[in-house]
Amino acid sequence: MALLYKADPVRGEQWKALFAEHAPDIEWRAWPDIGDPSGIEYLAAWQAPDDLEVLLPNLKVLFALSAGVDQLDLKRLPHSLPVVRLLDPGITRGMCEYASFAVLSLHRDMLRYRQQQMARCWQAHLLQPASKRRVGVMGLGTQAQQILATLQPLGFALKGWARSAHHVVGVDCYAGHEQLPAFLGQCDILLCVLPLTEQTQGILNRELFRQLPHGAALINMGRGGHLVESDLLEALDSGQLSGAVLDVLQQEPAPADHPFWRHPQILLTPHIAAMTQPESAFGVLLENIRRFERGESMVGQIDRTQGY
Amino acid sequence: MALLYKADPVRGEQWKALFAEHAPDIEWRAWPDIGDPSGIEYLAAWQAPDDLEVLLPNLKVLFALSAGVDQLDLKRLPHSLPVVRLLDPGITRGMCEYASFAVLSLHRDMLRYRQQQMARCWQAHLLQPASKRRVGVMGLGTQAQQILATLQPLGFALKGWARSAHHVVGVDCYAGHEQLPAFLGQCDILLCVLPLTEQTQGILNRELFRQLPHGAALINMGRGGHLVESDLLEALDSGQLSGAVLDVLQQEPAPADHPFWRHPQILLTPHIAAMTQPESAFGVLLENIRRFERGESMVGQIDRTQGY
Repeated sequence: MALLYKADPVRGEQWKALFAEHAPDIEWRAWPDIGDPSGIEYLAAWQAPDDLEVLLPNLKVLFALSAGVDQLDLKRLPHSLPVVRLLDPGITRGMCEYASFAVLSLHRDMLRYRQQQMARCWQAHLLQPASKRRVGVMGLGTQAQQILATLQPLGFALKGWARSAHHVVGVDCYAGHEQLPAFLGQCDILLCVLPLTEQTQGILNRELFRQLPHGAALINMGRGGHLVESDLLEALDSGQLSGAVLDVLQQEPAPADHPFWRHPQILLTPHIAAMTQPESAFGVLLENIRRFERGESMVGQIDRTQGY
Repeated sequence: MALLYKADPVRGEQWKALFAEHAPDIEWRAWPDIGDPSGIEYLAAWQAPDDLEVLLPNLKVLFALSAGVDQLDLKRLPHSLPVVRLLDPGITRGMCEYASFAVLSLHRDMLRYRQQQMARCWQAHLLQPASKRRVGVMGLGTQAQQILATLQPLGFALKGWARSAHHVVGVDCYAGHEQLPAFLGQCDILLCVLPLTEQTQGILNRELFRQLPHGAALINMGRGGHLVESDLLEALDSGQLSGAVLDVLQQEPAPADHPFWRHPQILLTPHIAAMTQPESAFGVLLENIRRFERGESMVGQIDRTQGY
């Protein structure tokens, strides 16, 4: 029984060493040296190769090496192939750190102070108590709930929205298309950690920004595809939005002439909110392989009809 | 019985309204209109006027309108006058927010990403788990302990140092001059919230930086007087320190030619970590007046011999 790895080769060496030490019964193979395809039962990949059915006839599970699976074209994968996303606790911790940093940056006017430092201007601005700052999270899955739990002790007024109904202690939850306007009207800071699907593509757009309180701020930690970038520029220009912290873009790496690079009201980072770390992710992946071997359900298996 | 207020006039109006509503028995007077000096029993001030004994012969308590009292020249105040610092919960919350922002900024390489954004450079850097990032707090008083409690759920390895021995759950505590080197050797990020006294003046200097791990980072939320600014520049130049987040400077406002303004490894803010807010501070001040009237001890009364 073999596992084929198809992702970053540097981290591949770390994965390989972990398998050799802790799971010697699983033969490790790294793309493109696949050897005899008939022996490959598991594929651990960022993106899947084409014609998977033909290439790996005995493939039993596709393990995505990421928390989101939007980079996979699910429709082109064998219909009955289980696809499992990686719920690496290291990724969740990274997301929580970044979310706290981003929310505090906007809450404490740090984009303005960044500009002031460049302009050699020493001027304090009034401080708003966290209890009066409403932070709304779009998405209420595992990561979103951990992010909310991290923000809670800082005293923010927390809101959450998802497609389906959720109950999260200490968070005003809204659900579905009908309750989206009521949710948006309550968000001084809006943070997006939605999965990217056909339904959420371009959801952060002009129409949505209009429903936020005037001067609200945006954090996008989801995918670049969630944001209509020209609509953000327009909303910043008009003052409808006051600032944005963005970790993802439509095109990554961002081209040198992208207008976000030098925008004074945008803090841009190069998709670093979280990274899969073999150290913390290995246990999760191996446990799912063992669960599959025992006929148990795997953690993070996606619903192919919903796409997440 | 009257209280004389001597500080920012804009916030003075907020204080005045709060006294009128909640403590009409205490007559409000605002500097410089002091009226009959003999009726003034309380002084609420940022800085005290000269010749206090002569000016206000019946003064009973000096309430500083700040958490630190280093701006007062204690030696020139009447010897037996109680001096009370303001333990505004709003100040503590502000300090916790700023500390979290500053620690996360350094932990997540945000000074480097700030430079990259300006240079239109999209490049990710490896991420260190918080559990491997040692954060050391200098000072273990009320504010420092709240800051440590705020950092704890983020998973950092926490250290603390103060002049006297403390025990704080989940924090490796060090005490006194003898244990300072052992503490410093453990600090990837050093955060200063010490009171400013003769002993702590200039404590953040070349000699101290040398005892930190190579590439450590500094946060100063204490007073500008703690830091020898030229020594910081030297340590950043040599690579002994990798970055600094500073909210306070020797001279405030910073002059336009100050070298910190445009330093790529320094994030500078204009003394905004926390601000006394009449809303949250009023209850604390009034409670102390009532305690004094009842002959009870006041919260935040300083030890005149120690200066904090």
